[in-house]
Amino acid sequence: MTRNNAHTGAPLQPALRAKRLGLYAQHQPVVIMRTDCHVCRAEGLSSRSQVLVSAGGRQVQAALFQVQGDALLAINEAALSETAWQALGVAEGDMIHVSHAPAIESLASVRHRIYGHRLDARAFADIVGDVAAGRYTDVHLAAFLTASAALPLDEDETVDLTAAMIDIGDRLRWDAPCVVDKHCVGGLPGNRTTPIIVAIVAANGLVMPKTSSRAITSPAGTADTMETLAPVDLDMATLKRVVEQEGGCVAWGGAVHLSPADDKFVRIERELDIDTEGQLIASVLSKKIAAGSTHVVIDIPVGPTAKVRNAETAERLAERMRSVAARFNLTARCLLTDGAQPVGRGVGPALEAFDVLAVLRNASDAPDDLRRRSVVLAGAALEIGGKAKTGQGAALALETLANGQAWSKFEAICEAQGGMRTPPVAAHVQPLIAPRAGHIVHIDNRKLARLAKLAGAPDAKAAGVLMNVRIGDEVGRGEPLIHLHAETGGELNYALDYAERNPDIVSLTP
Amino acid sequence: MTRNNAHTGAPLQPALRAKRLGLYAQHQPVVIMRTDCHVCRAEGLSSRSQVLVSAGGRQVQAALFQVQGDALLAINEAALSETAWQALGVAEGDMIHVSHAPAIESLASVRHRIYGHRLDARAFADIVGDVAAGRYTDVHLAAFLTASAALPLDEDETVDLTAAMIDIGDRLRWDAPCVVDKHCVGGLPGNRTTPIIVAIVAANGLVMPKTSSRAITSPAGTADTMETLAPVDLDMATLKRVVEQEGGCVAWGGAVHLSPADDKFVRIERELDIDTEGQLIASVLSKKIAAGSTHVVIDIPVGPTAKVRNAETAERLAERMRSVAARFNLTARCLLTDGAQPVGRGVGPALEAFDVLAVLRNASDAPDDLRRRSVVLAGAALEIGGKAKTGQGAALALETLANGQAWSKFEAICEAQGGMRTPPVAAHVQPLIAPRAGHIVHIDNRKLARLAKLAGAPDAKAAGVLMNVRIGDEVGRGEPLIHLHAETGGELNYALDYAERNPDIVSLTP
Repeated sequence: MTRNNAHTGAPLQPALRAKRLGLYAQHQPVVIMRTDCHVCRAEGLSSRSQVLVSAGGRQVQAALFQVQGDALLAINEAALSETAWQALGVAEGDMIHVSHAPAIESLASVRHRIYGHRLDARAFADIVGDVAAGRYTDVHLAAFLTASAALPLDEDETVDLTAAMIDIGDRLRWDAPCVVDKHCVGGLPGNRTTPIIVAIVAANGLVMPKTSSRAITSPAGTADTMETLAPVDLDMATLKRVVEQEGGCVAWGGAVHLSPADDKFVRIERELDIDTEGQLIASVLSKKIAAGSTHVVIDIPVGPTAKVRNAETAERLAERMRSVAARFNLTARCLLTDGAQPVGRGVGPALEAFDVLAVLRNASDAPDDLRRRSVVLAGAALEIGGKAKTGQGAALALETLANGQAWSKFEAICEAQGGMRTPPVAAHVQPLIAPRAGHIVHIDNRKLARLAKLAGAPDAKAAGVLMNVRIGDEVGRGEPLIHLHAETGGELNYALDYAERNPDIVSLTP
Repeated sequence: MTRNNAHTGAPLQPALRAKRLGLYAQHQPVVIMRTDCHVCRAEGLSSRSQVLVSAGGRQVQAALFQVQGDALLAINEAALSETAWQALGVAEGDMIHVSHAPAIESLASVRHRIYGHRLDARAFADIVGDVAAGRYTDVHLAAFLTASAALPLDEDETVDLTAAMIDIGDRLRWDAPCVVDKHCVGGLPGNRTTPIIVAIVAANGLVMPKTSSRAITSPAGTADTMETLAPVDLDMATLKRVVEQEGGCVAWGGAVHLSPADDKFVRIERELDIDTEGQLIASVLSKKIAAGSTHVVIDIPVGPTAKVRNAETAERLAERMRSVAARFNLTARCLLTDGAQPVGRGVGPALEAFDVLAVLRNASDAPDDLRRRSVVLAGAALEIGGKAKTGQGAALALETLANGQAWSKFEAICEAQGGMRTPPVAAHVQPLIAPRAGHIVHIDNRKLARLAKLAGAPDAKAAGVLMNVRIGDEVGRGEPLIHLHAETGGELNYALDYAERNPDIVSLTP
């Protein structure tokens, strides 16, 4: 169709001035425009949920919110959430353009999968590409993940998804024939074996460039704990230098972009509280492969309040994990471990760091469970890395701890990462005591994690929970079960209130 | 566990002053708090996506956003989006409490369904109850709907879901043995038969209390069109009075709360662009049953750019629709109709109203397709309502139009609803002309709807598109295909730009 009038016809390019509100809309890029804004009306944006915001050659897809009146925005302004602000890299008052978000072609594949059809490598690549670019809304992500749970990904699909997740991100390459990694599937409070394993493995001459996450819903991530001991916010050049010099590092993974779609999937899986085997495998393996690993040891804690609840599920997961890893020339060894209770004594960044230090320094009061787990996992890494014969890795690992080589290596790694630090201690410490004598029969991992978070972990580095008991221990009336550590009195009181309302965090025999 | 200190222990009840921003965060209840707010830290809310906001005995579950600095909020303030503001019914400065959102028990059933287990009536009732109460996030809704698509709802599940959706809302009751309704599955631009059918059916003495929706993504809903002819925003008492007096009404359904979970489901289905049979049936039938209907005529347009794309799908949908309806003692008659192109000439509230008026007034230029469709559907209603023998309903409907009874009834209904109005006409009208001679071979319903929206419909009541041609018509070069109607020059230009970039809205033979 053509018009019958002479229309000069340069496409209208309505622009607005960017305004920063300092708004954290969770993960979401958001643009806020006035209801009476000429761009909203002219572009027909009002009823749209997703729009495309452009500035200076960069683009971000954002949720459109509107605001009535001039209290927040002048008529020629649009506000951006921090996520959108940073994605666009704008400055206050820069001109931004807002238009309809383009159609997302890969959603056709998601619908196809919902209706029971399997997807090929091309489809997964397109989906993961759109996810990593931020084009999928939470609704789209939830639909894709649900479809992958309702009809579980088969092995080929898991391989294709893993490959797609690797290809969309950065990839590390190492000048070594054997690069070792470790991963723990699912959260067990205090299970902070990583710094110990890296020290043992690197002390034995293997390469272990470990990147770890910060806590998202837990009281501490490995990066949070390690940060109380040394800087973890390493850029790619520093990370490479540390690993080339010391053979290992414990860095925060956020500074490098390995498998960038994964965080988006994980956030939604957490909200739905669903764990699907295929997604889990793709999530774990894509990060390891992108990090350049050739060998990986996988810790699968099994327990009633752990992520994997029984041995049968764990065995099946391990089998599929090994077989998918093999398709990428990655050797995976999976270890099923006890997931019944927290590991070590501390739960919270600094408190866990003290446990790590005690094990590395061979302190007489070092938590034995943390030492044993670290030794078993490091032993497996030494075996698959060719530094010990099968069955002899744990002994070598224990020896590396006992003779102080692991501690020396750990000190060297911390120095290389920017200098060793002393973890902070809490200003407020308060015991929770046994209301009567008895044996400890159960510890609720999830409630314990919540308690540590109410005390301030992980933002307050010194905060958390110190366990005085383990399952099977006998306690007398009035003896401490737990010590709460907090940086402020208010946070201590919140944790105390929660403990009072939840007497089953640590259960005694009746 | 107990504490060893004397703690006075009244649970802390931190309160903040409510601030209104006039923020429309789409449908979402949102609360914005400062990152340095004592409540966020004390309650451990920072990493939470969903919180519970309470004020004066009312509660709403809201997404938590945070803001840095004091530009937006004082330290003792929290801002609410309009949805949250209205749900709580607060005034500026009222004290509000924010705490953790409670766990949603029914999500266990959603996970159960994802993993392939069918649900019972109790589970559907719990899910729908939580959905209607606003406890489900978009992610939860998407997971439930995707699970119901991946393993389609069987007939028992569809019945249970329908029953749950009815039970959670209001229910109308009528003092008549036969209450008729109609529904059209899926949008065909301009398919505005409802006001004509209500007039014909009510003129024949049947009761037809019609509630209709406003447009959400389309250029006009029946309520938008009817509003240019009479008030539609009727409260329950007025609606009952109109129906008791005239036998029928055409009111906006938003004022009554029939099947309140449905809107939430529909919004997510639209975002995913999935239509599942079970959800569709529960959506349609729950509203009809809640409205007190005993008989319903269902229009299922079938066409390549319509919601239902082929006759086989339509037949299966019709069969299941009838059979589920029967379980609620509702008689459903489904009619498969031509969904290849728009109905009538106008697309947009007022332009469609002129088509409706032309048919009701027997105008010589009344669009014949709209008349024929209305007569067929009204005829079916007259037959199932016992006013005509099978096969004779259409003739009676046509006669009711021809003898002016339908028009009189329509005028009476408009008067009873608050007084008949004259639809507005657009200030700017511009033709789009054929670039060459040829036959019309295709009309893209979706792009046509988009064009009408860019011209301003449905907010600008007079705006939209007037079709000058239908499929099969022959046109000469320079003859008008479409007239664009707009209230402002800016909107007209936007529609013209879109038309120029999309020459395939109306396709000619090459």
